[in-house]
Amino acid sequence: MNILEIIAKKRDGQKLSEAEITFFINEYTKTQTVKDYQAAALLMAIYIHGLDDKETYYLTKAMLASGNTIDLSSIPGVKIDKHSTGGVGDKVSLILSPIMMSLGYKIAKLSGKGLGHTGGTIDKLESIGVQTSLTSSQYMKLLKKIGIFIVAQTEDIVPADKKLYALRNATSTVGSRPLIAASIVSKKLALKTDYVFLDVKVGDGGFCPTVADATALAEIMLKLFKAFNRKAIIHITDMTQPLGRAIGNAIEIKETIEFLNNENVSEELKEIIYCFASSILLTTKQAKAIKQAYKMIDDVLASKTALNNFYL
Amino acid sequence: MNILEIIAKKRDGQKLSEAEITFFINEYTKTQTVKDYQAAALLMAIYIHGLDDKETYYLTKAMLASGNTIDLSSIPGVKIDKHSTGGVGDKVSLILSPIMMSLGYKIAKLSGKGLGHTGGTIDKLESIGVQTSLTSSQYMKLLKKIGIFIVAQTEDIVPADKKLYALRNATSTVGSRPLIAASIVSKKLALKTDYVFLDVKVGDGGFCPTVADATALAEIMLKLFKAFNRKAIIHITDMTQPLGRAIGNAIEIKETIEFLNNENVSEELKEIIYCFASSILLTTKQAKAIKQAYKMIDDVLASKTALNNFYL
Repeated sequence: MNILEIIAKKRDGQKLSEAEITFFINEYTKTQTVKDYQAAALLMAIYIHGLDDKETYYLTKAMLASGNTIDLSSIPGVKIDKHSTGGVGDKVSLILSPIMMSLGYKIAKLSGKGLGHTGGTIDKLESIGVQTSLTSSQYMKLLKKIGIFIVAQTEDIVPADKKLYALRNATSTVGSRPLIAASIVSKKLALKTDYVFLDVKVGDGGFCPTVADATALAEIMLKLFKAFNRKAIIHITDMTQPLGRAIGNAIEIKETIEFLNNENVSEELKEIIYCFASSILLTTKQAKAIKQAYKMIDDVLASKTALNNFYL
Repeated sequence: MNILEIIAKKRDGQKLSEAEITFFINEYTKTQTVKDYQAAALLMAIYIHGLDDKETYYLTKAMLASGNTIDLSSIPGVKIDKHSTGGVGDKVSLILSPIMMSLGYKIAKLSGKGLGHTGGTIDKLESIGVQTSLTSSQYMKLLKKIGIFIVAQTEDIVPADKKLYALRNATSTVGSRPLIAASIVSKKLALKTDYVFLDVKVGDGGFCPTVADATALAEIMLKLFKAFNRKAIIHITDMTQPLGRAIGNAIEIKETIEFLNNENVSEELKEIIYCFASSILLTTKQAKAIKQAYKMIDDVLASKTALNNFYL
């Protein structure tokens, strides 16, 4: 097998086989016989011509196999992973996590840095000095003890994504749907939670300018989760405006704390938080109806349990 | 100006401005702030979406300006440059050159190595130990003294092409018409001959699989030569079969010598050589009719003047 032939096939709009896609990922990320410029040419051809469902599945599989997976079976309770495709001012993960902890869930989240113009959860946490680079034994201890970890993607988890992510950022190939889907889903699969809750953002502030774009991305990802037998729920939410009041890593943390403390609460942000939290409660059968779910969320906010969890 | 925006424009099928194309060439080849992987992504986008006539003109101009030009005005006589797009077994330049020298022309030729599966004239000469890396003062002396030079493209002549050529070879972006045209024409323009004779090959053995491909490439190049005010004649010839009997650098040299010595002459090769040589004689008004031109060629072959010129 030869990388020049693989590039040429996709350049000409042909489909790549599982063997070809696996070869590309292995040779680029493990043996490094495929060079950055060859990967860049292939990524651009993929950006323009796309990948079909099968090719996207092969890519996700090869990316997942490029590193280790994290077994959470020793941790009791319902383990959930909440992820957003990101957008300007998106601090939902930061607010939702302590709320869900208060409701008894275990939150496990591996997060990337911001892609393009969007800030990542990791950037926001690092802006206030939170240590986000932990070893697996460190974050497993955290999950057992306090019920949450949000850490930066480590070198051993989908290393292929880390490398591709950086290259896409430097070659204007970030916004390709199958590449976004494979990147997100491979990381979610590596961390063996019980449920994945995904938030796909629509609007100029994110990577899907229209509802149609977001729906198309969500459909690709749902197919992938199904193919890998993982339970996943995907929300599509508005990102035509920055979310909440604050944009900027540190001041978004401030808005998060204010929200949990019931100060200066943005109605739009509140609606999304309640929607997600209740969707998790209903999906995992911890609440029987929306009304009950809202009441449970109200309680953990009013009692400041969620706020206290943020400071843990 | 920003390379990521330039890549994104071409990725989305938009046209690039002169400033953007010049920026790319300068930043990639001079300051090297544009990296190989970024150039590779842009080349793939250009391969797939193409360049229009204006963009191809800007690219050729920027490539030409990346290096020095060679002034031949101090050399008396009609200075010609004969170039082939290349193909398996193409040894026409090697045979034609000593014939045209015998007919009083000055032959100036800067040549590249073979691209992809085609062998270059330089590879063939190097296979028999000919020194093809000469300084400009060395090859100007050759042209004055014996009337010919065929040397490898030096670092200072269209350095942008040398870099792009290597990158295209490594990223399956060789066969793009505007990129081929800009590469060939920029080098022809750098060497200020009186006439350029170009041979565009058609068939699996070359880069234009069909006559339509070759015609399209020839049209782009003719427009470029016209825009830069250089006299050029382009032939389109058959390359569906390897040309002549020999394929392989050293044995093609052997076939060249045999041809000039009137031994084992391939009829198909003879037809092309006579066609080109007579076209040069007629274009430059050294012959008035085909018949006279053929006679002139017969004479220099029969007298072994051409053969002796090969050994100079």
